Amino acid sequence: MLKVSEAHLLGRIEALAAVGAIEGGGNARLALTDEDRAGRDLVVGWMKALGLDVRIDGIGNVIGVRAGRENAAPIMTGSHIDTVRTGGRYDGNYGVLAGLEVVRALNEAKIATRRPIAVAFFTNEEGARFTPDMMGSLVYAGGLGLNEAYAATDKDGVAVGDELRRIGYLGEVKPGALKPHAFLELHIEQGPILDEEKTRIGVVESVQGISWTEYSVTGVSNHAGTTPMRLRRDAGYLAASVNVFARKLAWEMGGNQVATVGSVAFRPNLINVVPNRAIFTVDLRNTDEAKLKEAEARVAAHIAEIATAERVTVEAKVLARFEPVIFESTLVDRVEHHAKALALTTRRMPSGAGHDAQMMQRLCPTAMIFVPSVAGLSHNVKEHTEAADLVAGAQVLMNLMLELAEA
Amino acid sequence: MLKVSEAHLLGRIEALAAVGAIEGGGNARLALTDEDRAGRDLVVGWMKALGLDVRIDGIGNVIGVRAGRENAAPIMTGSHIDTVRTGGRYDGNYGVLAGLEVVRALNEAKIATRRPIAVAFFTNEEGARFTPDMMGSLVYAGGLGLNEAYAATDKDGVAVGDELRRIGYLGEVKPGALKPHAFLELHIEQGPILDEEKTRIGVVESVQGISWTEYSVTGVSNHAGTTPMRLRRDAGYLAASVNVFARKLAWEMGGNQVATVGSVAFRPNLINVVPNRAIFTVDLRNTDEAKLKEAEARVAAHIAEIATAERVTVEAKVLARFEPVIFESTLVDRVEHHAKALALTTRRMPSGAGHDAQMMQRLCPTAMIFVPSVAGLSHNVKEHTEAADLVAGAQVLMNLMLELAEA
Repeated sequence: MLKVSEAHLLGRIEALAAVGAIEGGGNARLALTDEDRAGRDLVVGWMKALGLDVRIDGIGNVIGVRAGRENAAPIMTGSHIDTVRTGGRYDGNYGVLAGLEVVRALNEAKIATRRPIAVAFFTNEEGARFTPDMMGSLVYAGGLGLNEAYAATDKDGVAVGDELRRIGYLGEVKPGALKPHAFLELHIEQGPILDEEKTRIGVVESVQGISWTEYSVTGVSNHAGTTPMRLRRDAGYLAASVNVFARKLAWEMGGNQVATVGSVAFRPNLINVVPNRAIFTVDLRNTDEAKLKEAEARVAAHIAEIATAERVTVEAKVLARFEPVIFESTLVDRVEHHAKALALTTRRMPSGAGHDAQMMQRLCPTAMIFVPSVAGLSHNVKEHTEAADLVAGAQVLMNLMLELAEA
Repeated sequence: MLKVSEAHLLGRIEALAAVGAIEGGGNARLALTDEDRAGRDLVVGWMKALGLDVRIDGIGNVIGVRAGRENAAPIMTGSHIDTVRTGGRYDGNYGVLAGLEVVRALNEAKIATRRPIAVAFFTNEEGARFTPDMMGSLVYAGGLGLNEAYAATDKDGVAVGDELRRIGYLGEVKPGALKPHAFLELHIEQGPILDEEKTRIGVVESVQGISWTEYSVTGVSNHAGTTPMRLRRDAGYLAASVNVFARKLAWEMGGNQVATVGSVAFRPNLINVVPNRAIFTVDLRNTDEAKLKEAEARVAAHIAEIATAERVTVEAKVLARFEPVIFESTLVDRVEHHAKALALTTRRMPSGAGHDAQMMQRLCPTAMIFVPSVAGLSHNVKEHTEAADLVAGAQVLMNLMLELAEA
């Protein structure tokens, strides 16, 4: 059996983690920054050294292709190498570098597969600098036009198109030109479930639908000492009440419903002034579209009720909305098969996070493999996965890719 | 009867408002800035032109004294002329300039009162640049030492002592050297009650006690999609729950209890990350010290309960704590008497905001007179009081000062 080399896999993870390294062992390689460019250059160098045909498309996605015995649709794997501002070293990177490890092992064993093998990394998966997240794979799957993507700007008004050109990753290949026979993404869970249960492999059946909304509340600023409670029009109070309501809603709905108020800003944000402005976000997720819609409707109803009572106005702006994605069941079964064949414990589960794989499912049969995240930490410099789990996940990926590449 | 001149009073208010004027009709004369110096120079010039003996004390308080027939303790009035960053033209200034109008009218009528008359403005009442607020009157009343006050720094590290010297207002007189027979402060309400009720004069019986606390919450940052609700340790949730609880508490306690969460910050403050840090403030006020303590205790108990349930830690830092102040009842009665004698409608009320008068009550019998603030707006460029109300309040002040100056 072709085997994953722990030394090679971990060596590459370590080397990539040195690019944009930040205190605590994490990484800051926000999409299309100088740090992202440096990470890209390193991985592209590895791809070329492994003999891959490197293709850069119009949104900066990078695909390294290893020719097959036949000129058929390739088996593609991949993920992303951009990070959040205080990210870990495994999120995304692990899946890309495990793909390179499959190629390295094939090269070493001088194996030519029937179908080509492709390893990709997609642009701006995190969405930490530019909206929407999963931008590169969304463009790849035809869900977002190039011009629209180019026009997206960061908080300083800098545009994706300009940054792609600046860092030298505005490629000429048409996104999606290479249509895979199947796509697989290996990723850390980014949640606590596998670690808590001591399960080795997560067999990902679906991705939770995501609903992101930003609310801007306008009330009236007033003196905190002289304004009786009954005369207040407190924008901050509405924001706080939605946070508390979202928690209650998620508990009431149960299942895999989650709800988060992760960001908030008050104005004037002074200890002794009733806030006249509050801007906050609500993140809702569910694997069931009907339930996700119910959660959205209940949050909206709560906001309408409090806005009336508090005599404040609220503007809502949808920042992202993805329906739940169901992965190809035959492919999901094969993930489970190969994990069990390696005597690894498994658990079928949804993904709570968004992934490039959910975009690729629009284009071809797709599945995901999860490995445990210690304590569920992710988007955190302390993100960690044990070496044995990293190797096990990569081995499942390798075995499944070899099977598919001959099919 | 000696009468207030609307033209003189409004003319001086207008002229002072031109110093440090900002868009929208407001003022920015933060304490001890160049703008504050320019405002001080203008008012000191007026004092001298009115023949007052101008004394500048060690904390920069300015007292203009008009000699009496006898060398007795003076009847003092005053307030402050510093403003918040986006302040109005009446807050503080009105009381000081109404005092000058009393002097002008006495001069014009060539009246010599038995007791001297003094008009004061105190340093850094607002606390918008240096902590604590009401600094000048607190030092005057012996509640804060000069060296401690000098050492207070603004956010850029600039110290009060250095700024007093720089702007030429580090005087040699010992603060509090002139002990008044009585102190009166005329001020805009800064709240909506008089305006809402169309009452002309607020007879201020007390100043609410103030409790300001900043809370720093530490939880664990986690992925908003992959972290089940039961495993969250959300610092932001605690902040929000305190905001909602504070509102409920104020309603339940009733009376003049108010509670405000005016400022909040989450970290990392991202839409899809459970916040691991939240810093927020709670402002509690009541005229009854026992009730204020009850409010503090109930907020603390709520925080302890949520912190345990959410498994987050909370540090509390008291930013300010003043007990309620009860003004001299015989003097309060005289405010009401003179307002009624002028056929003005009155309302007995507490002050929700802090004022220099609350410090002066430590030193001598003290009372305050309020006039309406249109729509209750204050600390806002739109702060406004009708001319007729400005004149009416000043007339009450004048009549009461004349009575006291002969007593």
